[in-house]
Amino acid sequence: MRELLYEGKAKRIFKTDDEQTVLIEYKDSATAFNGQKKADITGKGRLNNEITSLLFLKLKEQGIESHFIKQLSETEQLVKKVNIIPLEVVIRNVAAGSFSKRLGIEEGKELTKPMVEFYLKNDDLEDPLLTTDHIYEMNVATAEEVAILIEKALQINTVLTGFFNELGINLIDFKLEFGKDTDGEILLADEISPDTCRLWDKKTNEKLDKDVFRRDLGSLTEAYETVFNRLGGKQNV
Amino acid sequence: MRELLYEGKAKRIFKTDDEQTVLIEYKDSATAFNGQKKADITGKGRLNNEITSLLFLKLKEQGIESHFIKQLSETEQLVKKVNIIPLEVVIRNVAAGSFSKRLGIEEGKELTKPMVEFYLKNDDLEDPLLTTDHIYEMNVATAEEVAILIEKALQINTVLTGFFNELGINLIDFKLEFGKDTDGEILLADEISPDTCRLWDKKTNEKLDKDVFRRDLGSLTEAYETVFNRLGGKQNV
Ligand SMILES: Nc1ncnc2c1ncn2[C@@H]1O[C@H](COP(=O)(O)OP(=O)(O)O)[C@@H](O)[C@H]1O
Ligand SMILES: Nc1ncnc2c1ncn2[C@@H]1O[C@H](COP(=O)(O)OP(=O)(O)O)[C@@H](O)[C@H]1O
Ligand SMILES: [Mg+2]
Ligand SMILES: [Mg+2]
Repeated sequence: MRELLYEGKAKRIFKTDDEQTVLIEYKDSATAFNGQKKADITGKGRLNNEITSLLFLKLKEQGIESHFIKQLSETEQLVKKVNIIPLEVVIRNVAAGSFSKRLGIEEGKELTKPMVEFYLKNDDLEDPLLTTDHIYEMNVATAEEVAILIEKALQINTVLTGFFNELGINLIDFKLEFGKDTDGEILLADEISPDTCRLWDKKTNEKLDKDVFRRDLGSLTEAYETVFNRLGGKQNV
Repeated sequence: MRELLYEGKAKRIFKTDDEQTVLIEYKDSATAFNGQKKADITGKGRLNNEITSLLFLKLKEQGIESHFIKQLSETEQLVKKVNIIPLEVVIRNVAAGSFSKRLGIEEGKELTKPMVEFYLKNDDLEDPLLTTDHIYEMNVATAEEVAILIEKALQINTVLTGFFNELGINLIDFKLEFGKDTDGEILLADEISPDTCRLWDKKTNEKLDKDVFRRDLGSLTEAYETVFNRLGGKQNV
């Protein structure tokens, strides 16, 4: 029997024989609005696992390390265990979603340059937006660490934007999580999937991400399957 | 007849014969929670006008300029006309109110150092918290202007904290507005009153500010009168 370390909204984290690694299982559950909207969507776990694995490999090719070690099965991957820094690091290229609503900036407006935001990863507080002063006051990260997070986030954005662009997809915004490994190094962790990115088809502006679920725009797995196929994934028949 | 330029939630702004100045009349209306809670409280306008006038004079003695020219009557003052920068500049010494709630920091916890936050002055959007990147993206202020605002805000905080301290009052947090005068200089404007400060009695922790109204803690004018009296104002009998 595998020992469950943590069950989140989208994934389960299991212990392995190696203290330095954990196994991540991607679940079929979809949640939105801080867990208020929920559904079970067959195939979502597989698609997110496949897509995340492909993207972490792609980043590695470009010299960007992550916790990803290897894919173990359709829904599982082996990763380096890290201490997650409790920040949702959000990178925005185009105004959308809560950002547009909060600030009154029209959805679809391109930002003058990519922007990094930090949200506290805390479901009880509904992931509040943080200024850097909040981060320091709450001892969530130091100024040095924040500078590293911003640098890495923008670097990852450059690679992913270019990559999705080749596939006819606009990377509107996305969320990253980082952790510290046993050496104290800051490492990209968690997932990069249509659950954590806004992806719009360049020609049609069709949404190929979790907004399909949030806004009831059609079949989530069809949208995710489109992303997976363009990434070169095997069609699942 | 005086020409009304703007009527806000707490004050009316009138034209004067001089293009460079405006007359501010302090109203008796109290509002909270972005205007959802409202009341008319006789004497509030007078108290806020008196208190603001005293505090702007006090700041001037310490070399900090503001829009304040002179008090005209119990409820009116003459000020330099400025173009208000649409930011609520909030300075916090102790966690309280929405800050405590949003971030899960206990009300009353002293911050490791004073913190400056920026909120967009926009009632429709309910004054959202802004990061500096938001400010630049929305062209609300430049990085240079933000640096000036932070410097001025912290300087004003030092003076006011010391001043209230001598009166047995803890300055917990407060909101400032700044504007640009005809020379483009950034000048402290608007008001500094128990409407815009959190003031706690040092001995009893009694609230001497608008939280008395927000949280139904008793007589607002009694609380404001206490502040005015300690500031050396004439008792109104
Ligand atoms: N390499 C890792 N080591 C340890 N924990 C991780 C790693 N990568 C991601 N996690 C954490 O595992 C959890 C993933 O599950 P998820 O369902 O996304 O959780 P949540 O509902 O908290 O977002 C998250 O808390 C995430 O921060
Ligand atoms: N010196 C000034 N010149 C021009 N406008 C000012 C000056 N000082 C304050 N104001 C503006 O006048 C209005 C004051 O009225 P108030 O009732 O506080 O309005 P609000 O409900 O918008 O906060 C505010 O919009 C404030 O920004
Ligand atoms: Mg998650
Ligand atoms: Mg006001």
